This record gives sequence, C-alpha cells and structure tokens, in this order.
Amino acid sequence: MSSETTPKSVLDPSKPIRVQMEALIRAKQAEITAGLESQETKEGVKFHADEWTRDTANGKGKGGGGRSMVIQGGETFEKGGVNISIVHGELTPAALISMKSNHKSFRTNKKSGEGDNDNDELLPKRFFAAGLSMVIHPVNPHCPTTHLNYRYFEVGRRAGKGEDEDELEEPECWWFGGGADLTPSYLYEEDAKLFHTEHKKALDEFDPSYYPRFKKWCDEYFYIAHRGETRGIGGIFFDDFDELPAQKCLEMAERCFDAFLPSYLPIIEKRKSIVATEEEKQWQLVRRGRYVEFNLVYDRGTKFGLQTPGSRIESILMSLPVNASWLYNHSPEAGSREEKLVKVCQKPVEWA
Amino acid sequence: MSSETTPKSVLDPSKPIRVQMEALIRAKQAEITAGLESQETKEGVKFHADEWTRDTANGKGKGGGGRSMVIQGGETFEKGGVNISIVHGELTPAALISMKSNHKSFRTNKKSGEGDNDNDELLPKRFFAAGLSMVIHPVNPHCPTTHLNYRYFEVGRRAGKGEDEDELEEPECWWFGGGADLTPSYLYEEDAKLFHTEHKKALDEFDPSYYPRFKKWCDEYFYIAHRGETRGIGGIFFDDFDELPAQKCLEMAERCFDAFLPSYLPIIEKRKSIVATEEEKQWQLVRRGRYVEFNLVYDRGTKFGLQTPGSRIESILMSLPVNASWLYNHSPEAGSREEKLVKVCQKPVEWA
Repeated sequence: MSSETTPKSVLDPSKPIRVQMEALIRAKQAEITAGLESQETKEGVKFHADEWTRDTANGKGKGGGGRSMVIQGGETFEKGGVNISIVHGELTPAALISMKSNHKSFRTNKKSGEGDNDNDELLPKRFFAAGLSMVIHPVNPHCPTTHLNYRYFEVGRRAGKGEDEDELEEPECWWFGGGADLTPSYLYEEDAKLFHTEHKKALDEFDPSYYPRFKKWCDEYFYIAHRGETRGIGGIFFDDFDELPAQKCLEMAERCFDAFLPSYLPIIEKRKSIVATEEEKQWQLVRRGRYVEFNLVYDRGTKFGLQTPGSRIESILMSLPVNASWLYNHSPEAGSREEKLVKVCQKPVEWA
Repeated sequence: MSSETTPKSVLDPSKPIRVQMEALIRAKQAEITAGLESQETKEGVKFHADEWTRDTANGKGKGGGGRSMVIQGGETFEKGGVNISIVHGELTPAALISMKSNHKSFRTNKKSGEGDNDNDELLPKRFFAAGLSMVIHPVNPHCPTTHLNYRYFEVGRRAGKGEDEDELEEPECWWFGGGADLTPSYLYEEDAKLFHTEHKKALDEFDPSYYPRFKKWCDEYFYIAHRGETRGIGGIFFDDFDELPAQKCLEMAERCFDAFLPSYLPIIEKRKSIVATEEEKQWQLVRRGRYVEFNLVYDRGTKFGLQTPGSRIESILMSLPVNASWLYNHSPEAGSREEKLVKVCQKPVEWA
C-alpha cells in the first residue's frame, strides 16, 4: 500500500457532522474488513456481520444500533472484530455530571446571567455517538495484536418534545476521540517504526504537535499500572478533541483511519508465515493475559460498556483474545527476546 | 473425612485475638495444603512456599508479610494457591474515610463531648489484618474450582510514638470476613449439596440464621452483573462481622475453615478420574473466562490489591486460572449439561 492507493474521501461537508461520521465509519468498516480478509488464507474464513439495535433504558423508542463484524478461527486471524455503533438517546443527570468533569468544552443550557438554577442544568439532554472500534488478534505470535477506535460524540439541547424525536439540533458541544495502537508479543523494531510513522504522517498533515502529544497520551492511557508496563508498544490516542473546526476534525479522523491498513497489513504479510515454537506460543498467551488485565481493569470504554444496562456484552468483550494464560511467578529470561519486549513496555521508546 | 477427624482447636483464649488469628491461619495453611496434596497424583507436584515481606508506603519500617503456597502443573490441580498474610501499618486519612463508610462499628478517636474537631478524627491510625486466601483450579472440567478466604481486621489508636512501634493496644474496632464458594463447569447436584451442607453445619453451631444470610450474601457478592450470572454455585460469604464476641467469631472462623476439606476433597476424589472430552475442556476454558471477568472487574479484594502500591501482584493474581478462553457469541445448546450449569448461575438454588 502506498499513498497513491489512499481511498478517496467519503466526506460531504454539505451534510451535518454526525451524518458524515456515520458514512465514514460505514465505509471504513467495509474497507478495513476487506483489507484484513486479504491476509486470511483459510478457506471460507471471512468477517461475518451481526446487526444489533439498542433499546433505551426505559424501553421506549429506539436508541440506535450497530453492526459487529467478526472473524474467528482463521489461519492468519484467531479472532478479530470491527464494530460500528451509532447510538443516541437521553443523558441522565448523573451521566451529565460525570461527563462535565471530563469534557472541558461542555456547556450547560444556562445562558450567561441566567442565575444559579442547578435544577435547570440537570435536565436531561440528548446525545449522539458514532464510532468504529476494532481489535485484531492474529494467530502467529510474531504478528502483533492491534486495536483502533475513532469516535464522535455530541450533546444537544434538552430533550422533551417527544419520544421519537431523536434528531439533535445544533449540538451544544461535541468532540472526537480515538487512536490506534500495536501490541506485539515479540518486538520487531521495523514494525514499530512503520506503525508509528504512518500515523505520524497522518497527523502531521493537521499539526506537527499532534503526533508527539498523541503518542505520549497513548503510552499513558494503555498503561497497566499494577505491572508497571504499557499494554503494547503504543501508537496514538486522543480524547475530548475539539481543537480544530469539526469538519477539520472529521478529515483528521478519516486520514487516521486511512493510515491503519498501510501501517498494519505489511507487518502481517511479513510475519504470518514464521514458524513459531511452543515456547513462543506460550509467551503469546501470557501477553494475552496482560491484554485481558488491561481491558478488564483499566479500559474506560470496556468499563463503561459493562456498567451500561442494555449494552451488547458480546461486542464489548469481543476485544478479549480467544485464549489467555496466567502462570504463577513467570518472568522472561535475562537477555531473551521476551525480556526485550517487556523492557520497551516498561520504558516506551520514540519510534517515529 | 468425618467429624471424628475434625482437627483440635488451635485457639488459645489467653492470647490476643490477632495472635490467635495468626496461629489459626498458619495451622490451616499447613492443613489445607496437606489435604489437597493428598489428591495430587503427579510425582513431585507439591505446594511450594514463597515468603514475602511488605514494605510500608514510605519505605520506613516493616509492614508485615506473608507466605504464598502454590501448586502448579499437577494431574489433579492445574494451579492453586493458599496464601496467608499478616500485615499492619498506618491507615491514611483517605483510607480511613473510605473504611468508615463500610464498617458500621468504626469509632473515631474522639471521646463523647470532645467536640467536632474533624482534623483530630483524621489523624492516621494503625491497622492490623490477617487472613488466609485460597483459590484452587483443578485440571478436570468435572472438578470444581473453589475459593476460600477468612480474614480478621482491626484498627487501633493513633500512630505516632515511633516508627518501629507496630503493636496495637486494644483495637478501637475490629471485624471478621470471609467465606468459601464453589465454581463448577459442570453441575453435580450432590457436590453442591455436600459443599453447602458442610458449611451450613459449621455456621449452625453459632446461629441458625447465619447460613441462610451468608449463602444469600455469597450469591449477591459473586455476581457477574454484565452476564446476569453468579460466578459459580455459591457457598457462604460474610463481611464486617462483629455480631458475636471476638473470641466467638474466631471460633466460628476456625469451624468454617474446618468445614472446607470435608466439603471439597470428596468431590475431587470422585471426579478427578472422569475422562473429559475436548468439548468439556473447551467449556471449562469458557467458564474460566467468566472467572477472570469476575475477579478483574468486580472482586473487591483483587481491585484493592491492584490499587495498593507495594502489594505483591503475583499473590493477588494467583487466583486467575492458567488458561481462559473467550469465544465470540458462544452459548450452550438448549437442554445441554452446559446450559444446566448456566441456569443455576442465573438463578441460584437452595442447596442445604
């Protein structure tokens, strides 16, 4: 893949951001699953789609839905999912309060000078969220696991005109979030460089300060505190992002999406036929145990999903590997390739 | 095992509760590991001990320690640990506040009429905690995983006389907690009845209301909310327990400890030689995935341990199975033995 084959933009600035974001994630789901399938050699193993709809907590009206695309049991890919969700509904006052502390741009319904009526502030609001989230666990211990997620969130004016009225007017606030990162069991420096360089190129088109910031943010976010290790060798991560005009943010998300396949497929192509030893497979299982630890103990998206009544557990836990292992007091030998990987997780490296 | 072989009490009421508790857990660690080893058929596979010491957060002075005993790679037992810890130190004001909301009996340093000096209340206090905690994952899918934990906690007068002065005077408050529970992959009703009946007998000696209360508490505590399932088929669980005089509580803990081997060894004896199919082994891996989900997402002890600087991660995560599996959209066939197990996890049964 070279820049000549970068897909044409699917964005249409004449449409609202949320409509363009939905079109973007639908297109990227199709493109990424097709790209990954091109590396799967086992006859008949393809991504399969499950459509799902979300019911709102009170059971009234529809809350949107999504499309999970899952591949399982391949020769190249042990398990992988590329999910999109487009959901909307009412934010409870409690959710609103918790969001306000996280999102600096959040504005309340109050106009300046309207006084301190806190009850007014706590009326329910409408939200809209659309995102694509992907986790890919390859079979071969020399092929890295990867994760990608880009999402758009907006919060609108107070609800209350009617149950079926799901459309938002102009959002009161909005933000983008997401990123992509790599989790190898064995470190190939050229792979780390490729993955980081492709994502740096994407972000540099918008602001040269973004890659260094988002790279650091990624190392900080995907951190397994109780192990003193990052989950993998990082990539990029950002949240609450509204520093550019929304249309520009959308372009950035599209560009980041487009960085993924050229940063990952060449690695799979190169590593998928390496003959792995039993020891290497066992080490991969141990590293997958770490992946499970991060996702269940720290990942905000997973925790939020598990706590949200009515969320689709299969889609949330699709991120977990088929198999993971925990051995008591296991640690790699000094000077081994396994230890080399652990060391870059203990002390992140600049790859691009 | 019959009641004739119930071990003699190791308690000595002339000594402080914490000294007796330490003696109790040391004796029970030896007894339980020996009992379990009697079921292990693989040559040379025994429990191995690791002694560890805990450094206090500020690095000054000693915070106690423990002894982890671990068995791994047997024919009967895939992985199991029986750990004791006896730790003491200073409670930060933040920990104190969070404990106060959980423990009704907590009293502050203030004497009645001393006024509302909140700063005074928030001076550091000494704590002492001693407990035994065990998780056993057998190899055979027809042998249930089991977990047991009994612990004693006390909080004493303000610290400040000197760094090495670890002894508490009379505790201002204290409590016991713990329980034992069973997590089968396949349901054998007679096993469930045995396990519950033995624990009911132990508690009935103290108060006939305890077993029904602690059985329900167990079902409620070991609940995987996002799955709508209990972790296993329950047992007993209690916390913040100070309803009896401390010496009586200690006797109850001893009696509960003594209920364990007679409630578990006969099951292992009976099931360990069943020839399991590949499908049964796969189902066991899926159920172990649920075990990991509970321990990493919900278990208070695990979460607290992972958040505590300086805690021994290997001892905390020893509870995790060697292998666990997550399959996308996996659910047992209608009418199968696998479904039968899921049903009792969705709707707990009265076994004794």
